[in-house]
Amino acid sequence: MTDIAMIEAAAERLQGHARRTPMLSSPFLDELAGRRVLVKAECLQHTGSFKFRGAWSQLSALPEDRRARGVIAFSSGNHAQGVALAARMHRVPAVIIMPSDAPRLKLANTEALGAELVLYDRAREDRDAIGERLARERGLTLIKPFDAPLTIAGQGTAGLEIAAQCAEHGVRDADVLVCCGGGGLTAGVALALEAHAPGLRARPVEPEGFDDTARSLRAGERLSNVGVDGSICDAIVTPQPGELTFPIMARLCGPGLAVSESMVLDAMAQAFLRLKIVLEPGGAVALAAALFDPQALRGDAVIVVASGGNVDPSVFARALARLDDG
Amino acid sequence: MTDIAMIEAAAERLQGHARRTPMLSSPFLDELAGRRVLVKAECLQHTGSFKFRGAWSQLSALPEDRRARGVIAFSSGNHAQGVALAARMHRVPAVIIMPSDAPRLKLANTEALGAELVLYDRAREDRDAIGERLARERGLTLIKPFDAPLTIAGQGTAGLEIAAQCAEHGVRDADVLVCCGGGGLTAGVALALEAHAPGLRARPVEPEGFDDTARSLRAGERLSNVGVDGSICDAIVTPQPGELTFPIMARLCGPGLAVSESMVLDAMAQAFLRLKIVLEPGGAVALAAALFDPQALRGDAVIVVASGGNVDPSVFARALARLDDG
Repeated sequence: MTDIAMIEAAAERLQGHARRTPMLSSPFLDELAGRRVLVKAECLQHTGSFKFRGAWSQLSALPEDRRARGVIAFSSGNHAQGVALAARMHRVPAVIIMPSDAPRLKLANTEALGAELVLYDRAREDRDAIGERLARERGLTLIKPFDAPLTIAGQGTAGLEIAAQCAEHGVRDADVLVCCGGGGLTAGVALALEAHAPGLRARPVEPEGFDDTARSLRAGERLSNVGVDGSICDAIVTPQPGELTFPIMARLCGPGLAVSESMVLDAMAQAFLRLKIVLEPGGAVALAAALFDPQALRGDAVIVVASGGNVDPSVFARALARLDDG
Repeated sequence: MTDIAMIEAAAERLQGHARRTPMLSSPFLDELAGRRVLVKAECLQHTGSFKFRGAWSQLSALPEDRRARGVIAFSSGNHAQGVALAARMHRVPAVIIMPSDAPRLKLANTEALGAELVLYDRAREDRDAIGERLARERGLTLIKPFDAPLTIAGQGTAGLEIAAQCAEHGVRDADVLVCCGGGGLTAGVALALEAHAPGLRARPVEPEGFDDTARSLRAGERLSNVGVDGSICDAIVTPQPGELTFPIMARLCGPGLAVSESMVLDAMAQAFLRLKIVLEPGGAVALAAALFDPQALRGDAVIVVASGGNVDPSVFARALARLDDG
């Protein structure tokens, strides 16, 4: 199981390879939220999301001979790019299994980062069977997107930075809102805060209608989403919280929050206008809660983890258009 | 005159108040430029541009009794916001003189940062006379946007950070492309590099048709633009290089570069796509040169100062639309 020692060890392995992303703020956002807002800009991490941390954590911990044979991952999104770049920086092969109908830009990006793409037909082929066969034949190691101790440890390095940056900013007692899919980032951050900033409390934020983690935390057991399609925040929608991540979140996190699509687009617009960063919908849910659901929070400051920025131009344009209306 | 000791003193005064902005990169940009590209993201500075540095440098150096009476500036843009916030953080009054036809959002932003706005009619009133009267009556200190030793020293603190960050990245010999208006940032960066990273050479970048600095450097004397209206990069268009900034640039800078509006919009799009930062047109000219004029550069790396991100949503949407086409 992931513990603080594993997170600190991951931080040492990430040193000089992952970015220490900045903690941003704006008096305009403070005004809007009615409290101080500090934004951990993980969209500025390599490949545009925190996923690079977990991928690097896993790759860098592999025995050298095993790593040299290469890694494999299932993803059409941020995890794919994180694994592809981390593998390239380690000079080892990466195989990414993607549905053949994934967006062309995502296929092209992952390939440009040096990964070998293996496409499958979602309707007729079994993704897991393809992955297992390839892993066996080539001796590849599977890099899981969230439910693995070393992934959680890697994402937790963002939590170590948050603890240090909050201390620099004089914030010792606040909610830390985390964009939550399978819970790797939320669980990792929660563990880091428990050890280094006990006055800071992680809280998962999800899109409305896909709030499996919030409901699971209330129920005290893992519940599933009804479906996983149809959210503008698709990058952070998973069927249910992870087997490993959920117990950590249940022990350490405050109640979950859920935000509407319209709040998410407005949060992306505010991040553009006031912080000059690009957020994807799934990476903006925490900021949306901080700005537009202030009564759900406690204290005179809130920390927001802005987890990623890989958004299609047309979706970003929808967020911008809301500023022209206002 | 500004020298390295003044820049280092400014850096001490800025410590804990200005952000040490990150140096960003992307393998996709390296590929596009045919060399390593490191981007100093000053759009992530307070108020969305480097101007906060110069404003803080000037304000923090004033004798306390004089500072307490307040400051005054002429600007409808980034300088106004930088001065307004720096004054607010010092808890002293700021008066900003703006044309009454300035964009509503810029007026509102500057006022929201706590400044007192004084509007004048561009066609019928003399801006300088209004400013002089107010300064005299209230004992306000004029904060110049670029042609003042302490402003240049403040902007030069970005150069100190560039020198340190390039050393961390192992880059010792490269062109440093700087978005250039009156030359405060370019001159300050050039002085900092001369002292701390002599293998790095500052080079001003301007919009085509408004390349007064490039032409002045070639001629060895200060030349003027034909006009100052009509550039999408309006934030960095000034009539001519400064009296103080030009001799510094003439002594230290490499040849100037000029980029087209279309290159600027494409650079904004690449910054969105690959770095997840928001650049305004004037803040993207240096990146445009790095990506789309590679034969004008030397060496296997280039440093880009991305100077600001205060862009209207509709202009940003024009940049995004170019990605959909491509």
